[in-house]
Amino acid sequence: MESFSVELGRNSHPVHSGAGLLEQAGELARAAGLKPGRAALITDTNVSLLYAGRVTDALVAAGFEPVTIEVPAGEASKSLEVLSGLYDRMVEAHLDRSSTIFALGGGVTGDLVGFAAATFLRGIALVQLPTTLTAQVDSALGGKTGINHPAAKNLIGAFYQPRMIVADVAALQTLPDREFREGLGEVIKYGAIMDAPMITDLEIALPAILRRDPGQLQAIVSRSLKHKADVVQSDEHEGGRRKILNFGHTLGHALEVAAGYGSFLHGEAVAVGMTAAVRLSQRHARLSEADGWRLIRLIEAAGLPAAIPADLRADDLLNALKLDKKRSGEGVEFVLIDRLGHAYTHKLGFDEVLEALPQN
Amino acid sequence: MESFSVELGRNSHPVHSGAGLLEQAGELARAAGLKPGRAALITDTNVSLLYAGRVTDALVAAGFEPVTIEVPAGEASKSLEVLSGLYDRMVEAHLDRSSTIFALGGGVTGDLVGFAAATFLRGIALVQLPTTLTAQVDSALGGKTGINHPAAKNLIGAFYQPRMIVADVAALQTLPDREFREGLGEVIKYGAIMDAPMITDLEIALPAILRRDPGQLQAIVSRSLKHKADVVQSDEHEGGRRKILNFGHTLGHALEVAAGYGSFLHGEAVAVGMTAAVRLSQRHARLSEADGWRLIRLIEAAGLPAAIPADLRADDLLNALKLDKKRSGEGVEFVLIDRLGHAYTHKLGFDEVLEALPQN
Repeated sequence: MESFSVELGRNSHPVHSGAGLLEQAGELARAAGLKPGRAALITDTNVSLLYAGRVTDALVAAGFEPVTIEVPAGEASKSLEVLSGLYDRMVEAHLDRSSTIFALGGGVTGDLVGFAAATFLRGIALVQLPTTLTAQVDSALGGKTGINHPAAKNLIGAFYQPRMIVADVAALQTLPDREFREGLGEVIKYGAIMDAPMITDLEIALPAILRRDPGQLQAIVSRSLKHKADVVQSDEHEGGRRKILNFGHTLGHALEVAAGYGSFLHGEAVAVGMTAAVRLSQRHARLSEADGWRLIRLIEAAGLPAAIPADLRADDLLNALKLDKKRSGEGVEFVLIDRLGHAYTHKLGFDEVLEALPQN
Repeated sequence: MESFSVELGRNSHPVHSGAGLLEQAGELARAAGLKPGRAALITDTNVSLLYAGRVTDALVAAGFEPVTIEVPAGEASKSLEVLSGLYDRMVEAHLDRSSTIFALGGGVTGDLVGFAAATFLRGIALVQLPTTLTAQVDSALGGKTGINHPAAKNLIGAFYQPRMIVADVAALQTLPDREFREGLGEVIKYGAIMDAPMITDLEIALPAILRRDPGQLQAIVSRSLKHKADVVQSDEHEGGRRKILNFGHTLGHALEVAAGYGSFLHGEAVAVGMTAAVRLSQRHARLSEADGWRLIRLIEAAGLPAAIPADLRADDLLNALKLDKKRSGEGVEFVLIDRLGHAYTHKLGFDEVLEALPQN
């Protein structure tokens, strides 16, 4: 087990990563100062079958009395309707201000349950138990919670820090291949924006990572979590530096919208977005050909898409881009890298962005 | 105009009170650092008729481009359904992260709109423009926002501080009598829990207050706001001292539930709750007979109810009390005063509370 603390003043909290940690969720929660007694374990219908039993056992053994609440698996659960049903279940479970909510699952569960915890009784204790690679290396840490609105993803949400994050890398063994590879996009991102040696390490370790070598999984999860924590600590509410985490995401989000949600997994869209960001960085930030090539090669070697589908219309993408939250006037704030491991934001016109699209 | 700042670190914000301030809402917002441009003025159907026009003019004159959004007047608007419709209107208005939401109205509007602002794009700028006495002296300040769940009031909510509060005491002139008196309950509360001389001042000034003398209104609003700010500054998230603001509220809330929402206005129920709290304070906190009598007399002189309706069943009240958020085990955390101007929390058994009920 590797542990560290995300330092955010009164919102500081421990982060643990390691194999088999779901079985220790209860004792870790007690060690984090959470009160035993009434609690809820909220998870989705897929993850529930795999892990709810052992987490419940671990919580009960440590004195928690968890009610298990299931939401349907999939992005569609990030809706006001599912949230409303969740509030009803939380009321039925008689949760009070001293109760703890355990969010067990991937990014959808973490976002939805995090927002429910943030807004129930004006905020009750939340523990993130991420089970996907994307959630373990990215979404579980940082306090972004929320649901979707028909007009935009994550339009309704709050910044709300968990009291603890436990990433059990053993859970990654049961992840479908496509979802596992999806998470690698975010891992590569940390190398690109803030840790050049990580790119070299990933190039070397990729075969072992792809066959899910436990030691390698532990290494990338823990290294990624520390990078994310470093950024979030310096800018909790994304007023400045935290924006670099959006590398690949501006075009990635637009691509998800333009292609229709569900065509791309989030991480796949981000991978295409990173490829475009690399080209924009070569054009506008003097990123070298060689460094750009290494990144794109790594994205492809991870089994992630690096190009936009040939049948996607540039107009659709442009329209989606214009709806971006980071839009202002005739352009959009873009994250560029001037070398491996160093990122900054730069405003680009919509036409400049479209010129760099990596089309198949 | 009287102004001061609520000091909450990065959530610090100015508070202005005075007559005719709605006409200055735009320039005050600019002075508070809010960005001109896209904005929303959200109000209820009653208040809209009276004040939306002049606030819009004031905002436009200062460079804001406000869209007016109306919600139905009344407590029923603090629902997920109305909130959902509000998100839709906010999307249609193309609000972005640099937009400001102006909440114009009473406590319901402030709570609902505050929660919408807290959760739209993970939080956008909010200005509270309270128009009722209750909202001006209490609910607009402190960052409590939220909506109701069928199971409990304010069950869904968040702590979210506004960027500015503007209390235009001229708006109190159009308030129906019952709603005006309702707000006096909260004013008396500040005297009871933290400002003994205020009780004397209220005893003297009550006739002038009841005929809504502008100078007296300004005096009680500004004094109340400063008291609330003092408490909130020392305990933003109600971990300790802020609980004293619940004086009269524990039984007040239970009474609202037991009598059925709508029978009592919130402030009326709190007035009855304060009377019960006075009796409990005499029994359990050595509050003198004379001081208790003065408080109850002041509540009655303000035209507020001081007794529970004869037809209300004690069992209904007990059941409602057992649902209180401050419940623990066989009792409830109660706010008592041991003398005028000094309050603290004390755990009482449910039977001890019921014994002190001021029945008609």
